[in-house]
Amino acid sequence: MTLKTRLTETFGLRCPIVLAPMDPASGGELAAAVSRAGGLGLIGVGYGDGATPEAEFAKAGGACVGFGFITWALANAPDLLDRALALKPAAVMLSFADPTPVAGKIRASGAPLLCQVHSLDHARRALDAGADVIVAQGSDAGGHGLTTRGTISLVPHVVDLVAARRPEVLVLAAGGIADGRGLAAALTLGADGALLGTRFWATREAKIPDAAKARALAATGDDTIRTTVYDIVRDRDWPAEYTGRLLRNRFVDEWHGRENELRAMDLGARKAAEEQSRGGDPVSNVTVGEAIGLIDDLPPAGELVERIAADAERRLRAASQALSAD
Amino acid sequence: MTLKTRLTETFGLRCPIVLAPMDPASGGELAAAVSRAGGLGLIGVGYGDGATPEAEFAKAGGACVGFGFITWALANAPDLLDRALALKPAAVMLSFADPTPVAGKIRASGAPLLCQVHSLDHARRALDAGADVIVAQGSDAGGHGLTTRGTISLVPHVVDLVAARRPEVLVLAAGGIADGRGLAAALTLGADGALLGTRFWATREAKIPDAAKARALAATGDDTIRTTVYDIVRDRDWPAEYTGRLLRNRFVDEWHGRENELRAMDLGARKAAEEQSRGGDPVSNVTVGEAIGLIDDLPPAGELVERIAADAERRLRAASQALSAD
Repeated sequence: MTLKTRLTETFGLRCPIVLAPMDPASGGELAAAVSRAGGLGLIGVGYGDGATPEAEFAKAGGACVGFGFITWALANAPDLLDRALALKPAAVMLSFADPTPVAGKIRASGAPLLCQVHSLDHARRALDAGADVIVAQGSDAGGHGLTTRGTISLVPHVVDLVAARRPEVLVLAAGGIADGRGLAAALTLGADGALLGTRFWATREAKIPDAAKARALAATGDDTIRTTVYDIVRDRDWPAEYTGRLLRNRFVDEWHGRENELRAMDLGARKAAEEQSRGGDPVSNVTVGEAIGLIDDLPPAGELVERIAADAERRLRAASQALSAD
Repeated sequence: MTLKTRLTETFGLRCPIVLAPMDPASGGELAAAVSRAGGLGLIGVGYGDGATPEAEFAKAGGACVGFGFITWALANAPDLLDRALALKPAAVMLSFADPTPVAGKIRASGAPLLCQVHSLDHARRALDAGADVIVAQGSDAGGHGLTTRGTISLVPHVVDLVAARRPEVLVLAAGGIADGRGLAAALTLGADGALLGTRFWATREAKIPDAAKARALAATGDDTIRTTVYDIVRDRDWPAEYTGRLLRNRFVDEWHGRENELRAMDLGARKAAEEQSRGGDPVSNVTVGEAIGLIDDLPPAGELVERIAADAERRLRAASQALSAD
């Protein structure tokens, strides 16, 4: 039995689960594991100054995987997108900032275009840019996004918007989804599938140090926060409206709310402040979303895809049987 | 056919829908309409300085309704709870601050105790206090709450916590739910039902001026924000961690981020600042959540209860039929 949706039909998947292109967690190995288990794996290219698209694509060993980009960062790495498209990825996802300038090139390459959105305005912009799939991500998610909207109402509203404007476009739910319950909820909200980050961050294949994974497993969503302090420390030039969700720690507690003070320091002093707060702890920023509290193991990603799909099926079947019993 | 859950069985409802005890929207008339249609209506007592519990209970005309209180405000109105309990309400809900000091009295009265929680710590505290129902409300909701957690991951985590500690306790999902999709999602997330505020705020019976209802219908979740500026203007002594979600307007845009400056002004000057921002607009604060974008009518509340329940059933049935077709 499979969970059939428009997403599985369009992309030839066995279940409507997509790996968020997290940088650096989502390398070729993790993306391949998700795709081989019947989902869609996306490699996170991030700022374009880490592992090359070619190297990570090679690690996927021929599995049907795609790439995800930080849209605004493409301006600083003009050949990155061309090099990725030359590899014939299964899909390309754009997140953060206006996709319009690069959408045409992606669509011309034949790769399906996924656009992540955090608000209705973003969704309208993505539809205008020609997105094939809209990923509606709530502030519940880990990593960067807006604080404006939570997943549970953003998803059905984007579904309605898409149905009215370009009904052929698919919608994925993202943010706060980590198990079969979340996937089943995504489908009942009207989405064609779900994009999961944090849940796959906590797998064997994720390119994250073991100590950071262990730290995250001990935490819950209550321990996360949206902040910009690590962007300031890393001198990443994020557009002002974006914050990143991650685990609170001593550095965050000391500097969140004092961003202007931190920004006024030179880069060396910012890094020294972070190291001082850390006090020798090898674990620095741990970028996970609110769903981390639903996670208590580090399974192989392929096993996880099958577990989530089976659980979602079971939940939906149970809910419908409760109805029929009456 | 009915949507049967532990909530409908325990409370004798025809559908697992509970009216949030909004002050002033949820008066006796609205609560009665929800209860008569098969849900559970809760009258919002608020700060205890508006309509009396006796007056609103009388307006419910014998329908099986309960009351909801702002827990910290009970300290300023010591007889309010006793007067409400004397009316033999169908349930009592406590929101905001530690329920422990008054939980015993409510349980001794025989009224089922609902405790609203915004984090896992809140949920543990409510379980320890003897709650019969935990309302897990995400920051997606309108009105007061914490910014910490969104509905889609808070609900399953609270469900797991309750299952491990006191499995006889029921869980309601709240925040960002306004239609059958949201109710169906609440059930697949593991909740026994949903508590809806904003959706019932936008009904014929809600005690809200027509002009404010019209303003809200034209808005979406993107137009809402969590802020404390109206608490400062109204001199409401909310615990520091709470913010309230409402529609952005000129006053919010001018003063959000300048809370300390506003707080330093005397009360008359604060009110004058709000009036000046408003510039003669009769509509002041409009307290709705992110789900407002899913709402485009002002139906009678009873009709709405039936519509949401039927739509949730349809969604769950459709999801399961898609499974069986394979």
